[in-house]
Amino acid sequence: MKSYRKVLEFNLPKRRQFVNITPEVDKALRESGIQEGLLLCNAMNITASVFINDDESGLHHDFEVWLEKLAPEKPHSQYKHNGFEDNADAHLKRTIMGREVVVAITQGQLDFGPWEQIFYGEFDGKRRKRVLVKIIGE
Amino acid sequence: MKSYRKVLEFNLPKRRQFVNITPEVDKALRESGIQEGLLLCNAMNITASVFINDDESGLHHDFEVWLEKLAPEKPHSQYKHNGFEDNADAHLKRTIMGREVVVAITQGQLDFGPWEQIFYGEFDGKRRKRVLVKIIGE
Amino acid sequence: MKSYRKVLEFNLPKRRQFVNITPEVDKALRESGIQEGLLLCNAMNITASVFINDDESGLHHDFEVWLEKLAPEKPHSQYKHNGFEDNADAHLKRTIMGREVVVAITQGQLDFGPWEQIFYGEFDGKRRKRVLVKIIGE
Repeated sequence: MKSYRKVLEFNLPKRRQFVNITPEVDKALRESGIQEGLLLCNAMNITASVFINDDESGLHHDFEVWLEKLAPEKPHSQYKHNGFEDNADAHLKRTIMGREVVVAITQGQLDFGPWEQIFYGEFDGKRRKRVLVKIIGE
Repeated sequence: MKSYRKVLEFNLPKRRQFVNITPEVDKALRESGIQEGLLLCNAMNITASVFINDDESGLHHDFEVWLEKLAPEKPHSQYKHNGFEDNADAHLKRTIMGREVVVAITQGQLDFGPWEQIFYGEFDGKRRKRVLVKIIGE
Repeated sequence: MKSYRKVLEFNLPKRRQFVNITPEVDKALRESGIQEGLLLCNAMNITASVFINDDESGLHHDFEVWLEKLAPEKPHSQYKHNGFEDNADAHLKRTIMGREVVVAITQGQLDFGPWEQIFYGEFDGKRRKRVLVKIIGE
């Protein structure tokens, strides 16, 4: 069994932002040389998400509006977590969007349907954040 | 290490529908011959879900009502994604229900609690959709 | 390839409660002797969750309030599942929080960011429940 590990780094200018990281994950897969296996990609920070969906800007706008409806940022005082922090909503939004994805590796490729793309979802940006890629297989 | 891949196909008559796919996933596991490992089962389409819950029709009705409350289909015009599409709500509903499940394989069996069943959740049906089963182990 | 399986048992005094199970999961990892691989940790009951977030009591309060807003327990009669049961809300809450986490194992450690902790989320307590830990790797 082979394994491969890579950390992606982010420091995004906005509080909330989606970044298509499929090319970086695909690069990690090629570096690993793994042909058959499973790939885990997860946020290492608990106010961020890794998820799979469509790379379509209208949909990303809909996600932003929807997450603000389900878990609004303001007023910050509505959350007990916001004593010394102001990011309780980011913990909730990341819960909706998910911490991680697991992707099948087949014949050296991300085994995806036609529209599947991997996104980093930032909900408390303007600081250094990390994503882990771990691949096992052979 | 062994690996096994299988694609399940769907073309459901309704826009939204839940299908218990545990027998098909279990069949794939037996075909694989894998005794110890991990099984990934994921929707290959981004308006569908794979999730684990109870096979109880009352609960499935509750899911439908609840998802329509959290991410209503109509009016279609409330979503920016719905320019040429009408399925933005399906992307949101699948986000709540999840893209994938990972199941432990122990002694050649799906290592489940007593009520765990795997479902395909369709949120934009009446077209061809696919689910991937990937198993690694030995 | 090595594999290791362990079941954690719970019987919590409250209907809803969060328990930090990181020490138990870490103990299972050390028992396994696995240095590189993937660890799956999932609720074996469909009214409970395993998730990763911050061990901060204010945030846990916020989760409780938020889940009650998105999927209220009462009135029990609002859910069709609640014929002989009263726990439909627990199925919905667990859907939001997630059934499982997959964690990378690197150099014999849970490969976590600084604040990541694994929680058992109980949404229908006062009875015996189980969590599965399955580790594969070498």
